[in-house]
Amino acid sequence: MASNSFGNIFRIMTWGESHGKGVGVVIDGCPAGLPLDEAVINAELERRAPGKSLYTSPRKEVDTAEIYSGVFEGVTTGAPIMIIIPNRDVDSGKYEPIKNQMRPGHANFTYLEKYGIFDWRGGGRSSARETACRVAAGAVAKQLLQHFDIDITADIVQIGEVTSCSDKKAALDKAMKEGDSLGGIVQFSIEGLPAGLGDPVYEKLEANLAKAMMSLPATKGFEIGEGFSSAAMKGSEHNDPFIMGEAGITTETNHAGGMLGGISTGNLLIGRVAFKPTSSIMQPQKTVDVEGQETTFQLPKGSRHDPCVAIRAVPVVEAMVALVLADALLMNRSAKL
Amino acid sequence: MASNSFGNIFRIMTWGESHGKGVGVVIDGCPAGLPLDEAVINAELERRAPGKSLYTSPRKEVDTAEIYSGVFEGVTTGAPIMIIIPNRDVDSGKYEPIKNQMRPGHANFTYLEKYGIFDWRGGGRSSARETACRVAAGAVAKQLLQHFDIDITADIVQIGEVTSCSDKKAALDKAMKEGDSLGGIVQFSIEGLPAGLGDPVYEKLEANLAKAMMSLPATKGFEIGEGFSSAAMKGSEHNDPFIMGEAGITTETNHAGGMLGGISTGNLLIGRVAFKPTSSIMQPQKTVDVEGQETTFQLPKGSRHDPCVAIRAVPVVEAMVALVLADALLMNRSAKL
Amino acid sequence: MASNSFGNIFRIMTWGESHGKGVGVVIDGCPAGLPLDEAVINAELERRAPGKSLYTSPRKEVDTAEIYSGVFEGVTTGAPIMIIIPNRDVDSGKYEPIKNQMRPGHANFTYLEKYGIFDWRGGGRSSARETACRVAAGAVAKQLLQHFDIDITADIVQIGEVTSCSDKKAALDKAMKEGDSLGGIVQFSIEGLPAGLGDPVYEKLEANLAKAMMSLPATKGFEIGEGFSSAAMKGSEHNDPFIMGEAGITTETNHAGGMLGGISTGNLLIGRVAFKPTSSIMQPQKTVDVEGQETTFQLPKGSRHDPCVAIRAVPVVEAMVALVLADALLMNRSAKL
Amino acid sequence: MASNSFGNIFRIMTWGESHGKGVGVVIDGCPAGLPLDEAVINAELERRAPGKSLYTSPRKEVDTAEIYSGVFEGVTTGAPIMIIIPNRDVDSGKYEPIKNQMRPGHANFTYLEKYGIFDWRGGGRSSARETACRVAAGAVAKQLLQHFDIDITADIVQIGEVTSCSDKKAALDKAMKEGDSLGGIVQFSIEGLPAGLGDPVYEKLEANLAKAMMSLPATKGFEIGEGFSSAAMKGSEHNDPFIMGEAGITTETNHAGGMLGGISTGNLLIGRVAFKPTSSIMQPQKTVDVEGQETTFQLPKGSRHDPCVAIRAVPVVEAMVALVLADALLMNRSAKL
Repeated sequence: MASNSFGNIFRIMTWGESHGKGVGVVIDGCPAGLPLDEAVINAELERRAPGKSLYTSPRKEVDTAEIYSGVFEGVTTGAPIMIIIPNRDVDSGKYEPIKNQMRPGHANFTYLEKYGIFDWRGGGRSSARETACRVAAGAVAKQLLQHFDIDITADIVQIGEVTSCSDKKAALDKAMKEGDSLGGIVQFSIEGLPAGLGDPVYEKLEANLAKAMMSLPATKGFEIGEGFSSAAMKGSEHNDPFIMGEAGITTETNHAGGMLGGISTGNLLIGRVAFKPTSSIMQPQKTVDVEGQETTFQLPKGSRHDPCVAIRAVPVVEAMVALVLADALLMNRSAKL
Repeated sequence: MASNSFGNIFRIMTWGESHGKGVGVVIDGCPAGLPLDEAVINAELERRAPGKSLYTSPRKEVDTAEIYSGVFEGVTTGAPIMIIIPNRDVDSGKYEPIKNQMRPGHANFTYLEKYGIFDWRGGGRSSARETACRVAAGAVAKQLLQHFDIDITADIVQIGEVTSCSDKKAALDKAMKEGDSLGGIVQFSIEGLPAGLGDPVYEKLEANLAKAMMSLPATKGFEIGEGFSSAAMKGSEHNDPFIMGEAGITTETNHAGGMLGGISTGNLLIGRVAFKPTSSIMQPQKTVDVEGQETTFQLPKGSRHDPCVAIRAVPVVEAMVALVLADALLMNRSAKL
Repeated sequence: MASNSFGNIFRIMTWGESHGKGVGVVIDGCPAGLPLDEAVINAELERRAPGKSLYTSPRKEVDTAEIYSGVFEGVTTGAPIMIIIPNRDVDSGKYEPIKNQMRPGHANFTYLEKYGIFDWRGGGRSSARETACRVAAGAVAKQLLQHFDIDITADIVQIGEVTSCSDKKAALDKAMKEGDSLGGIVQFSIEGLPAGLGDPVYEKLEANLAKAMMSLPATKGFEIGEGFSSAAMKGSEHNDPFIMGEAGITTETNHAGGMLGGISTGNLLIGRVAFKPTSSIMQPQKTVDVEGQETTFQLPKGSRHDPCVAIRAVPVVEAMVALVLADALLMNRSAKL
Repeated sequence: MASNSFGNIFRIMTWGESHGKGVGVVIDGCPAGLPLDEAVINAELERRAPGKSLYTSPRKEVDTAEIYSGVFEGVTTGAPIMIIIPNRDVDSGKYEPIKNQMRPGHANFTYLEKYGIFDWRGGGRSSARETACRVAAGAVAKQLLQHFDIDITADIVQIGEVTSCSDKKAALDKAMKEGDSLGGIVQFSIEGLPAGLGDPVYEKLEANLAKAMMSLPATKGFEIGEGFSSAAMKGSEHNDPFIMGEAGITTETNHAGGMLGGISTGNLLIGRVAFKPTSSIMQPQKTVDVEGQETTFQLPKGSRHDPCVAIRAVPVVEAMVALVLADALLMNRSAKL
């Protein structure tokens, strides 16, 4: 239900396929009075663009968002904000040789099982192109958060097995040369978050962050604070003692990652997201076709090849954090009388 | 919004505090015609009971669920199913000495920040007691899933730093003696899940499982399939080749953990959840009180002490998986014409 | 979906059947800090009680609400508020002779068609008893609205064909004597509503009021302001001129009933609800039984007989108005930056 | 929340203003496999076009819908369907003289109160232009319903005070000449609806129809079956006796309008919607401007003037019925085991 929507009060609905006219998003519930123009959105979209890094897909996308509604004289009006990102460089033709094949690591098999429809052009809704809409909507959410001095940053902290910067480059070079790909880990942190944001029980802030991240293509894990490492800790180590800080009660350490019982403590909120290696590789792979015949899957030469999707995911992770926080911020306005 | 609700079609709302009259849950959207009685629910509740393991809280709870509505002549009627689990053994008195203190690792500070209310009796809605309601509702969801031959199991695979059975016992003994606690990791798996369950984009099955798990008290991480390990893998290793199985197309390996693009492949679905060490320990801890005075937090002797919350979480993890699947199963009925 | 829930931020879920252990409601999303006790709720329940009017069902209900959760030291905590209203005077036995028959004007036929379940005891979820839960939840909503000086009143303005007080009594006497029943019209009005409440497009305030009223048993019509009469008016008559009032811009007349484009104008908000005559009458009626045999439906002597359900509906209408407004009030907190 | 969305499983979100680039709608949750093209949508849009009747606004709109996503090789894929209807003939210039004035009967005052934004160009989101999106989405819903042999029709049954065809024309001529406007009543009926559709309690079919209709611009009343007339009836008259029909149990009469307890009986479903007279009239009207100065509101000569909005509302009413039914149809798939 509403599987293309995210958020409660600050709510988005995205649409579009990688090989149609374009992709886009409608934002419903953005408060009126927020300064907004296309430049704010395009600046974020540019961070996601492939040309930004040596190691991202060579496809020459120049994504430009157009605001169709919801903004008047440079500020939001309270009406839904529709943003279109037209598709360019769309050529389904090259998929011709592999059009009847199940793509290893991809969703065309599961979509076929679910919908009974086999759309062989690109990835349909499972394409990473949908994340451009998240970045566009996230740019609006960030604009809202900045008004309240909340800042979000994300970085790639691991590529394949390596975490140091120089080794990352070597690892990517090697993967590129081998026509292979690498996974990665993206870490995000939030500064300026006031204490008291988030909700108890099923709408815990970390629960919504987890859903946001695990709704991204290629994600396989999510953790907050010490994350999986906390399983190996003792309570006496992990518990953060309460102390008096300059602005009131705070914690001395921050093993919890800025969150207790689903609600922000006011400390730095930190989390990490694990991405599997890019599914599209240049090597031949065993597969079957739609008729059930065994065959070899081989991407055509010159296909886009991102050796590590996690790299381009950095601004997407930030966008999803922003969407979760914008919603939590507005939800929180009805916590007290 | 609706922070005490979970699910879309198969939807629950829980209520109650650890120190009130009881806790309970209303299930809205369970299909009519499902055989159901209290024994089905109580069997699951018993698995969560503290007496079941040497290493869980000594509190003598004998939780018994009562069905108040929605069942007639032994089958569900389509009406909401309300289940009450009365509280027993409630004694707020022992909290008297620490009633004005922030509890390290607990949510009374963040609840105060959010609601402006300081409820010093037990954990209020952040209490693990709320999870009894999840188990009760999960028992109903499991009943539905069993009708479709879908089976869920969970196990504790790590306690503190150890993963072998004998060492686990020693580690727990040591923590108990030291008045300390340990984290842990619970793994779940789902057998019999048909291909095609789950939704694309924001309602991916793994996204809803992630939200479900990270909405549990004390969880700090979630992963599916290879999880965080996938970050260190190559695409050529991680991609699961498609082959023809007995029942149609399937994958030869299952690094993906039974999920592609948010939708089930029909293979075993596997995930893991990281729990932090129990926040309530018997050692003295640095804290402040509600007036901001620095003080020492010391649980009264004889307080319940669970050296590892992950142990009792096993049936709760199963329950949350069941709730996610029951909803996905019903949602899927409108995927095709 | 969630067919037993109402509202978005201030959200309720009701449960229970007329012939089970009791009925009840969970309120999720009531702001923390609102003074609340059972007396507030019971005062409203008493207004709905049958003994309150000469012309309502003789059943001797003494409904008493019990608050199970969400209130601590006399104020709401932000946790869900669960309220139980135990059933009394439950005797399914008298339905024995008619247990296999379709009840004219009742929902046992349509419930059977929908769920495949034939619950012959009372009306199940379609019973007017469910409205006690609405009144209980509405009492909490009213408490919230009174904090903001918003007052709701409702009255019965028509019984059968008559609108004058003395004739109403005569009409009811006649219906009672004939074992027949009468319809009626209830009018509600809201004072103190600030301008700007409600939402454009699909969540117009009048749309939510309409849904609220048409979700009540036995309602067949809803109108706001001039309602159906407005169809016979000219624009030059119906348009309310804007003028400067003491508190700012207002309208000179109020044909619109306090609403423009789904949002409150600050004027008195007025609406009306049409109730069909009570379906349960003492006369014999043609019907069929569950096997499809034609037969005569005859309520047993001594059955409860409300000659006009609209009378007891007055506090229920108020409760539904209160639920809509409480939600709109909280929603409105995120309209602006 | 989500004030620009409607529906649960079959869910739409509309966007756009009358004076921006266009308006549009995203449909999320339409089942895969439904044949769909732009002609199906444009045929419905044409029914709404002003040129279709002598008595609707002279504005020369030639609305043409473009499907941007969700359809592949002529059938729906399960992905969201985005439909754009570009704006034409947009000239905000003529509003210049009245740009600072409150428009009697319109929502610019209430929008200003809610959002603190005064958008003087046309009606923004309150413009009847938004209903083109409803018609487009409704065309898709109708396509789905036709697959299940469910047919919806609507007609205008009253214009001003008259109900006979020849008098309607005269009444409209007179209103046109006087620069005035008339209200009207639209009746809809649904054939082929199976018994068992709709939900108990808060999601009654008539409750959702009421919300759908009262969310339309200019609606002031809604009724089902006998509607407000039922208030003047006796139970012995209004109750529909159950009989055996050709296809099973049915009712002999249909005072209830095809609905019992919120669920369809399988009989013809009938309802009516009251529209107030068009707010935009050519006569001078008393008003105030945004600074609070009293002034006279006078639409510029040559402004569009619809003497009776109810006329063009006919296909919009049908569209809203279709949206409600499509959702109910899909929801109903999880009623039983």
